[in-house]
Amino acid sequence: MTATPVPAFEPPYVMAVFTSVRTPDDSGYPETLARMAELVREVPGFLGYESARTPGGLGITVSYFRDHEALARWRREEEHRAAMEQGRRDWYESYTLHVGTVERSHGFDRDA
Amino acid sequence: MTATPVPAFEPPYVMAVFTSVRTPDDSGYPETLARMAELVREVPGFLGYESARTPGGLGITVSYFRDHEALARWRREEEHRAAMEQGRRDWYESYTLHVGTVERSHGFDRDA
Repeated sequence: MTATPVPAFEPPYVMAVFTSVRTPDDSGYPETLARMAELVREVPGFLGYESARTPGGLGITVSYFRDHEALARWRREEEHRAAMEQGRRDWYESYTLHVGTVERSHGFDRDA
Repeated sequence: MTATPVPAFEPPYVMAVFTSVRTPDDSGYPETLARMAELVREVPGFLGYESARTPGGLGITVSYFRDHEALARWRREEEHRAAMEQGRRDWYESYTLHVGTVERSHGFDRDA
């Protein structure tokens, strides 16, 4: 989705790493993904997200939040809960979620 | 690289999220990547890594370590240091590194 890495935010902040392998079932998936990308922006304390998927392989999505309370708001969001449930039912073969606190970060930009 | 998400390890552990956009310069890149994948496995406390890249877009690599000391060992490794330097010189347009401690994680596997 994103073509630039998100910046290094001011620590501490929270990151949620979601790695997944998809099923072949694409019904409703792109639309839901687009809707979630839109919805998460409304969550107070949301900092950014980025995503990459090797064709036919692993996908990794990382979401960044100011604190655990902001992430909890996102996990409680109704449409998001429904999407997560449908993900387990239809879209994901397997996934792992890792949630943690970022203690340091830095960025590099060739043109900066 | 990986076609399965790494498992949810027992918290706490450390994760390093490296997101990047490549330059068009591919000279030596695949070989160095393969060599680093081999080398990192020898680092005591290394737990696993996974990688995804959207063609023409963003790449995300996540490495997992038992603790910060294990990650520090990897960052001090000579060949790795040389590769990071060449990365800034030749291979990366931009990147961001986020390092943090995982407090919770879980996995899902349809066939489990």
